[in-house]
Amino acid sequence: MINELVSKIKQLEAPIVVGLDPMLSYVPEQVKEKAFLEHGETLKGAGEAIVAYNTAIIDAIHDLVPAVKPQIAMYEQFGIEGLIAFQKTCDYAKSKGLVVIGDIKRGDIGSTSEAYAIGHVGKAKVGTKEYSSFSEDFITLNPYMGSDSILPFVKVCKEEKKGVFVLVKTSNPSSGEFQDRIIDGRPLYEWVGEKVNEWGSDFMGDEYSYVGAVVGATYPEMARVLRNVMPKAFILVPGYGAQGGAGKDLKDFFNQDGLGAIVNSSRGIIAAYKQEKYAKFGAENFAEASRQAVLDMKEDLKQAWVK
Amino acid sequence: MINELVSKIKQLEAPIVVGLDPMLSYVPEQVKEKAFLEHGETLKGAGEAIVAYNTAIIDAIHDLVPAVKPQIAMYEQFGIEGLIAFQKTCDYAKSKGLVVIGDIKRGDIGSTSEAYAIGHVGKAKVGTKEYSSFSEDFITLNPYMGSDSILPFVKVCKEEKKGVFVLVKTSNPSSGEFQDRIIDGRPLYEWVGEKVNEWGSDFMGDEYSYVGAVVGATYPEMARVLRNVMPKAFILVPGYGAQGGAGKDLKDFFNQDGLGAIVNSSRGIIAAYKQEKYAKFGAENFAEASRQAVLDMKEDLKQAWVK
Repeated sequence: MINELVSKIKQLEAPIVVGLDPMLSYVPEQVKEKAFLEHGETLKGAGEAIVAYNTAIIDAIHDLVPAVKPQIAMYEQFGIEGLIAFQKTCDYAKSKGLVVIGDIKRGDIGSTSEAYAIGHVGKAKVGTKEYSSFSEDFITLNPYMGSDSILPFVKVCKEEKKGVFVLVKTSNPSSGEFQDRIIDGRPLYEWVGEKVNEWGSDFMGDEYSYVGAVVGATYPEMARVLRNVMPKAFILVPGYGAQGGAGKDLKDFFNQDGLGAIVNSSRGIIAAYKQEKYAKFGAENFAEASRQAVLDMKEDLKQAWVK
Repeated sequence: MINELVSKIKQLEAPIVVGLDPMLSYVPEQVKEKAFLEHGETLKGAGEAIVAYNTAIIDAIHDLVPAVKPQIAMYEQFGIEGLIAFQKTCDYAKSKGLVVIGDIKRGDIGSTSEAYAIGHVGKAKVGTKEYSSFSEDFITLNPYMGSDSILPFVKVCKEEKKGVFVLVKTSNPSSGEFQDRIIDGRPLYEWVGEKVNEWGSDFMGDEYSYVGAVVGATYPEMARVLRNVMPKAFILVPGYGAQGGAGKDLKDFFNQDGLGAIVNSSRGIIAAYKQEKYAKFGAENFAEASRQAVLDMKEDLKQAWVK
């Protein structure tokens, strides 16, 4: 799956992942009204509004980008109905040829991590039968609990040829509270980066490892060091656009081959129609506004990866 | 809710939480057969088998313990049907008067953490309506991303009078990989413990804070320091029993008032019938075996908290 991601990035010249993180406030009124008319102002109504919104955006952008990243929290907030919307979104994106990165930030120990892995990237055994549930291609993981918490995911991913992105340096303002603390002369995030490199060293695709890392666009000065610490890890880069990162600042996330990073934009693309820049599309053409925002992002990012 | 937890612990003399972390292999054959007969060897069949198993255990132990802790990963592995089983388990436990601690180990940034909080301890707004979904009383959180990732949960919990337990020092063998690293002379887990104390300082119940901590029973020597660093944080203690901790080793988790900690046992109670010690109950009386295991644990723990 890492090979497929790399080859799609090359083919489309777009190291871009669109974050499908819908807040109900992003969903245009006409989409919500239609869903609420059918299902009422219910959790199912919310879920169906989100699916309709995501479907239109996926239709508008699937030929431009290699991947989407649904953030499961935005679905989990609506309980079971929200998680049904998450699953429908993943399934629809895959049916359109997109790589699906589940932003789930899970992590637990031993058999518990394995259970998460089974639910998201593996197969559950029930008696003599096997079932896939959420079925993402990649998932994000939290490393606080150490190797015990990551390796069960790696084990399942090896069986399924799927991959993970481990949080190393996150994009939020307080990420430094623990991640930047100095241990034996180097910040914690570097030590985590070293482990990411180690976890991925025997799980390689053709050029990059199935074990990637999350490093925020808001901390480009740290990307240079981390790029060297984990040369074979693909870096998932959140924090572009709405959170402050810009294309020209992202050079150090990429290797000399122009690869090695995939940049996420969520609100900046899925709610583009709400920005002044794309206001001319209007709420009725929200998906076309998203398409234009992807094209603009693709141009902006060339400053980062075209060597 | 922290006051309710404390008062139930006092009344029952049982600082015990039963971890409802069902593996299908724990569920006795007769329970599985019944569910599979009705629903087939399907994800729904798995979910219903787990609900039947949990229900019998809750019926057998609800008058002995203040709380249960369903581990969501064990349900999430079966996708939507598994999560329906999670919700049914939480709802049933609450209907029997138990405090429900959702072991979800979530954590993300800003509005994303808030979305998780809404789904698990808050209310989702859909148009003019509001809905609770999973509706736990407490949830566990991962602190790697810093204050940004915890405070949105605290905000929702304040509105709902619910609480959190933040991972400080986890019970697994590799927890030290990052958590034990020394920063300015003190291990990372102590710095996290200080933050837990800070996050909880303005969100107090009568005696203890709504912001608690997770500290593994397998590391009792660290509990003494952490107990002082966060005197008002209730400590959720995993790793008792099957993972190696014993009652006599847990003294330092408790304050002088005999309170301040609640010890989790999962497999040791819910799969007690599989142990030689409880084999006389037989698989058909698995719930009675669980009840006896709780009674034995209650006795064992007195060595820790009776001063």
